[in-house]
Amino acid sequence: MDEVLYRVIYGDTDCGGVMYYAHYMRLFEIGRTEYLRKRGLSYRAVEEEKGLILPVVEVSARYKASARYDDLLRIKTRLLEAKSYKVVFGYEILRDEDLLVEGHTTHVAINREGKVMRFPRDLLEILLK
Amino acid sequence: MDEVLYRVIYGDTDCGGVMYYAHYMRLFEIGRTEYLRKRGLSYRAVEEEKGLILPVVEVSARYKASARYDDLLRIKTRLLEAKSYKVVFGYEILRDEDLLVEGHTTHVAINREGKVMRFPRDLLEILLK
Amino acid sequence: MDEVLYRVIYGDTDCGGVMYYAHYMRLFEIGRTEYLRKRGLSYRAVEEEKGLILPVVEVSARYKASARYDDLLRIKTRLLEAKSYKVVFGYEILRDEDLLVEGHTTHVAINREGKVMRFPRDLLEILLK
Amino acid sequence: MDEVLYRVIYGDTDCGGVMYYAHYMRLFEIGRTEYLRKRGLSYRAVEEEKGLILPVVEVSARYKASARYDDLLRIKTRLLEAKSYKVVFGYEILRDEDLLVEGHTTHVAINREGKVMRFPRDLLEILLK
Repeated sequence: MDEVLYRVIYGDTDCGGVMYYAHYMRLFEIGRTEYLRKRGLSYRAVEEEKGLILPVVEVSARYKASARYDDLLRIKTRLLEAKSYKVVFGYEILRDEDLLVEGHTTHVAINREGKVMRFPRDLLEILLK
Repeated sequence: MDEVLYRVIYGDTDCGGVMYYAHYMRLFEIGRTEYLRKRGLSYRAVEEEKGLILPVVEVSARYKASARYDDLLRIKTRLLEAKSYKVVFGYEILRDEDLLVEGHTTHVAINREGKVMRFPRDLLEILLK
Repeated sequence: MDEVLYRVIYGDTDCGGVMYYAHYMRLFEIGRTEYLRKRGLSYRAVEEEKGLILPVVEVSARYKASARYDDLLRIKTRLLEAKSYKVVFGYEILRDEDLLVEGHTTHVAINREGKVMRFPRDLLEILLK
Repeated sequence: MDEVLYRVIYGDTDCGGVMYYAHYMRLFEIGRTEYLRKRGLSYRAVEEEKGLILPVVEVSARYKASARYDDLLRIKTRLLEAKSYKVVFGYEILRDEDLLVEGHTTHVAINREGKVMRFPRDLLEILLK
């Protein structure tokens, strides 16, 4: 499972003293972007060269414990599913060995005209590396 | 089902030209806060007077169509479940009659010491109004 | 001076218990957008019909007191300057009669090719209404 | 001048295709936090051990060019002024050698009772390192 570190800033927290629940979706985004980059693929290149965007069609998150200001979090990302019409990433957000949040996002591939496409085989192969 | 309006600002959108997927959780928050307020209860009062916070322990969203800059959205909120240990809100985000996003959040009640509590009966009764 | 109301949500606050300093720029955006709308002009229409964007080239804010969760804020916006090459909006964020934050943004007009343009006379006239 | 890197995510951008103007204040926060950390001081420790918060009382930014999705930005931070009653940080946001945004934040020191205090001498000495 791939991992990237993230330092919680003031702007991520809320007046409950912990990270605001929506901001974990930013961490999910960081996780999947770095997952692609480690496989030699930037998401920007997918957009620009393949003319595809991979929008989120579904997200879920379960919050087990709270991240606090200045915590150094570990964003772990893995591919849960890679089919021709959808791809699912799974995420775990940890502080040291404590699992704080787990979630997933489901993506489809859409071309410049807004039409849902099959994921290109070479893209799936890179994801499955 | 309760409804509140929300105007999409530039700061809600991303370079894909649509509302960033995490920002819908802000709308979910607006929805449930106004749901409480219409029943005569401010979430701030729940915190201050009852000494309870109602953190989100689970969220999900399904994205069917995109909200764009300056769209006037309708946030519809209803109570899906109200048990002594958890409460579930359901949300629909619409533009005119088009359903863009639907989701839910699950909440527990936690006291000032961080302990999970039963939802007070009077609070449940207000939610069920 | 034009006025629009804004309710502070959890997602606007930080672990200091008050609105995060960056989020006031969202309120400034709401203020100037509604300033235009009251004069019969949507910013989206400026972009789409005139082919102009009006990016912020300068912002400043002075924080005098803190907005808190659930506060109902008043965003007051006025035009401070309208020249052919730049427009300056001034903002005041108040809670009841208390001034919390004041700021300004300076904008230029840029066409679809990214070139700085003069503000069209009809646009300046609408702003000056 | 201290430097820290930041990768622009989708959630930082807006439908104009560039980073939303408010989000640079998040980068300013990252810059000053890492400025402290490099001098052996975490801002969290200032809060917890000294009982001081250092709120922003003034911010300004000038936008010269736009950061785009996936850009790797350099956040340069330096101390512009350190007096007993206020501290000013200056920031430059660059992509490679191109200056995109420059800004500053002014801070005062406030104790747990909300009273403005002198900056402790040891804190000023660390800042001036």
